[in-house]
Amino acid sequence: MEIHTLVNERFLQACRRQRTDVTPVWFMRQAGRYDPDYRKIRERHSLLDICAEPELCAEVTMMPVRKLGVDAAILFSDIMVPVGAMGLEFSIRENVGPVIAQPIRTKEDIENLRPFTPSEALPHVLTSIRVLRAELDIPLIGFTGGPFTLASYMIEGGPSRDYLQTKTMMVSRPDLWQTLMDKLADMVIHYGRAQVEAGASALQVFDSWVGSLSVDAFRKSVKPFMTRIFHELRKLDVPLIYFGVNTGELLGDFAETGANVIGVDWRVPLSRARARVGNQVALQGNFDPAMLFAPIDVIDKLAQDILDEGTATPGYVFNLGHGVKPSTDLGVLRHLVETVHAYTPRQTGQGAR
Amino acid sequence: MEIHTLVNERFLQACRRQRTDVTPVWFMRQAGRYDPDYRKIRERHSLLDICAEPELCAEVTMMPVRKLGVDAAILFSDIMVPVGAMGLEFSIRENVGPVIAQPIRTKEDIENLRPFTPSEALPHVLTSIRVLRAELDIPLIGFTGGPFTLASYMIEGGPSRDYLQTKTMMVSRPDLWQTLMDKLADMVIHYGRAQVEAGASALQVFDSWVGSLSVDAFRKSVKPFMTRIFHELRKLDVPLIYFGVNTGELLGDFAETGANVIGVDWRVPLSRARARVGNQVALQGNFDPAMLFAPIDVIDKLAQDILDEGTATPGYVFNLGHGVKPSTDLGVLRHLVETVHAYTPRQTGQGAR
Repeated sequence: MEIHTLVNERFLQACRRQRTDVTPVWFMRQAGRYDPDYRKIRERHSLLDICAEPELCAEVTMMPVRKLGVDAAILFSDIMVPVGAMGLEFSIRENVGPVIAQPIRTKEDIENLRPFTPSEALPHVLTSIRVLRAELDIPLIGFTGGPFTLASYMIEGGPSRDYLQTKTMMVSRPDLWQTLMDKLADMVIHYGRAQVEAGASALQVFDSWVGSLSVDAFRKSVKPFMTRIFHELRKLDVPLIYFGVNTGELLGDFAETGANVIGVDWRVPLSRARARVGNQVALQGNFDPAMLFAPIDVIDKLAQDILDEGTATPGYVFNLGHGVKPSTDLGVLRHLVETVHAYTPRQTGQGAR
Repeated sequence: MEIHTLVNERFLQACRRQRTDVTPVWFMRQAGRYDPDYRKIRERHSLLDICAEPELCAEVTMMPVRKLGVDAAILFSDIMVPVGAMGLEFSIRENVGPVIAQPIRTKEDIENLRPFTPSEALPHVLTSIRVLRAELDIPLIGFTGGPFTLASYMIEGGPSRDYLQTKTMMVSRPDLWQTLMDKLADMVIHYGRAQVEAGASALQVFDSWVGSLSVDAFRKSVKPFMTRIFHELRKLDVPLIYFGVNTGELLGDFAETGANVIGVDWRVPLSRARARVGNQVALQGNFDPAMLFAPIDVIDKLAQDILDEGTATPGYVFNLGHGVKPSTDLGVLRHLVETVHAYTPRQTGQGAR
């Protein structure tokens, strides 16, 4: 299989806090329901079908690259896919998310989870990555869920408002919690490694709901596992991104886990995020996806303000603060990419032309 | 009607940043489903029935005062009650929250909202407060919803994950947003004033979901209305509490609105909250309600750590970071009150005995 040379490396450069020609941009959930062609494919294929079909998965992954002009692709998949491969049955319910018929509650439930060998359990995902690596001339981001977020789905049985069962296990059965988190951390390490070996140029850990924890709880019950994960994945020498929402108070700890890039939601101004993470990591974010429904001049002004703040220090990747909403206008997203690429930020820590 | 002298003023003293004998404590949603007697009453009366029946409302309001030994009572009501009185029909759906059949979307919808005169629209609420003022010997906290949070229910039609319609109106129709927020701010001012005149000793504005906004959006689209509200309510000379979750980045702005006490969820350590709000306001919070499911020794340690941090500066009220969960054990809550009252914090900014 012929491998394309990456002709556009600005995403990787920004992750490494190197100078870039313009600020790189991609969007979380950039392959999704806002795109009429994606919706057409979803009429005939379920989300999990697409994940299981390498050609289809590669096609869906590349659609936003062609349409929007983003600087990175992200593998089309779902964070629950490897959890399914560990033996926990789940389905994806439309407008709800992952739903697990038999949530994890006991020692036995946790012991029954199978060890995870990516090449045996998910060969089609690795094939998708190889196909994409051969076709793309921009970096492909591989990803996994974060252990806390995965555990929350596994324990609650689906999305949750308060993570009550999850937090209850964490504090009342620290022995079970440790075992479950260790198994999930092992999975993340093996899966991340396999994705990079197949051709992913970076890895993002989506720990979307970890911001539901206090600083104290994060430090005691999650940070040690994240530190082990990033310590292992650092050996792969690709940028490692750690992302969650509502994580303003955790950013300093995030930067200590060994991740190279810290994702920031729209609640935290990037200058504050920078003060909390120090200068040894890059930042990614933090345009509120709801603001894509504003008039174009408001969108442009907000993007430019974010670019000014983000590029004040080397190491900044433009992104939304969370995934693209299904009702977003594709043309607005494309315009936003153009705005990001065209703008010369006021400060010149990065991206000066 | 005979009015009791308040024999326990430590809640008001802490709100005013005065020295207290021990740290005052109350719980958001302290009258609720965790209490078997409350559940028994709810078998025969809906939540809105209780709000409309002064004797019943007073009884439900006082139940946790007797059972838990808290230092303040909070009027049993719902933030949507005055919105109903403005002409917007709603119902409370169990385990969901307020549901509005005809959400507010147009100029006409907003114009159709009626001006709100508490004594005409909600005389039974004011009667409940008078009954409670006569029976209680601790302060009664009156409350209203914050305009943003109320607008979010009115526009979305119920609880929301992303407040997309609300934020869209905010940025794409600032004229409509201004009119709606002005009407809601007027309601909050009139309703707050009426509650204090009827006997409430403090007011809390529950702006639970305002933390979904960026700092920039809060400053442009919400802060001016909150500042007007607190400027007017300050004339009543009772402590004014401003509360929301996920508000870590907004705390400095909260302190500038004119509120006297800032509610803090469990994400923000109180020492950081204090650094952000300065020394002219009191703090309230911030025990994670999920941690009430931990073993008692873990609960005690966490409460003591919070007390050490909270009392480092004068002006601290112990509370949860959000409402009591329905599955909470009543005995655990009672124990927590005892722990708070019994503990001598390490620092002595407040509460030294």
